[in-house]
Amino acid sequence: MTDNRETCLSSERLYEGKMIRVRKDTVQLPNGHQSCREVVEHPGAVAVLAVTQDDRVLLVRQFRYPVGLPLRELPAGKLEPGEDPGLAAIRELREETGYTALNWRKLSTFYTAPGFSDEVMHLYLATDLIEGESDPDDDEFVECESISRDEIVKGLESGLFEDAKTLVGLLLFLRA
Amino acid sequence: MTDNRETCLSSERLYEGKMIRVRKDTVQLPNGHQSCREVVEHPGAVAVLAVTQDDRVLLVRQFRYPVGLPLRELPAGKLEPGEDPGLAAIRELREETGYTALNWRKLSTFYTAPGFSDEVMHLYLATDLIEGESDPDDDEFVECESISRDEIVKGLESGLFEDAKTLVGLLLFLRA
Repeated sequence: MTDNRETCLSSERLYEGKMIRVRKDTVQLPNGHQSCREVVEHPGAVAVLAVTQDDRVLLVRQFRYPVGLPLRELPAGKLEPGEDPGLAAIRELREETGYTALNWRKLSTFYTAPGFSDEVMHLYLATDLIEGESDPDDDEFVECESISRDEIVKGLESGLFEDAKTLVGLLLFLRA
Repeated sequence: MTDNRETCLSSERLYEGKMIRVRKDTVQLPNGHQSCREVVEHPGAVAVLAVTQDDRVLLVRQFRYPVGLPLRELPAGKLEPGEDPGLAAIRELREETGYTALNWRKLSTFYTAPGFSDEVMHLYLATDLIEGESDPDDDEFVECESISRDEIVKGLESGLFEDAKTLVGLLLFLRA
């Protein structure tokens, strides 16, 4: 495979925010032409496929402001600066669901939107769960529920799951 | 399920770009507190799971500047202003691979990164393919290949596929 790399010629910082940073780069294309690339820099995120002893998957429901809807998702969250993804996964599962897990395994790492963002998602499998008290941030409003294998199959057909990481995690679960 | 809606109090436009627009909103949370939400507005995109008569899936390889790597992906692209997603899928498949398809079916619609963006991905299944000449944009460098069911299974284990829409599409393919 040829690389067809695009080379940065100059970079303009457009926004430095709380969660994201935005820049616009002028790049040289493989054919020598110049073009612009808009890039949303993101710290990266983790998601957790947490499976109970009776083969149910934990989901969280929360309002997602960018899309204006409440979504059913795998427990997930962004990395804190310098945070190890595995430790972030443990933290997010506990904060959002109250559960801790005795067994952790990395399932997949993928880019969520490589056309305009560098966000990378680290997806973990958590099993041997121990129930506890959830500990959301003061300004976080998350409801935890669980769903059976059959309900997942039906939910995939009816469009119940509306975001990419949740679809990836649940589809991987159904292969196991 | 409670809605836990967040209400926009004010909105600041930060960037109007070629592909994305960025805004920062001040919102009221369900508990009455105020917070900020950074939102990357995106026109939406389409991806195509194109399956040949001999059960192979078409992939395209292209350099993705935001992540600094060439990726193997389902044929995909963003919507033009006002464009119908189904017609965009037909267009992108032809531009990137040269193929047209006699059979089209919507497989899934999902948000790629609902924590910070409204990008919605429309995923289509295309079958009864007819080979033709690809017609990439002047400044687009895409190589088409195809992959068998066995290679997809192995590739999932080895981390060959590195973006969310491609994982969703290939995992749905393996269920069929």
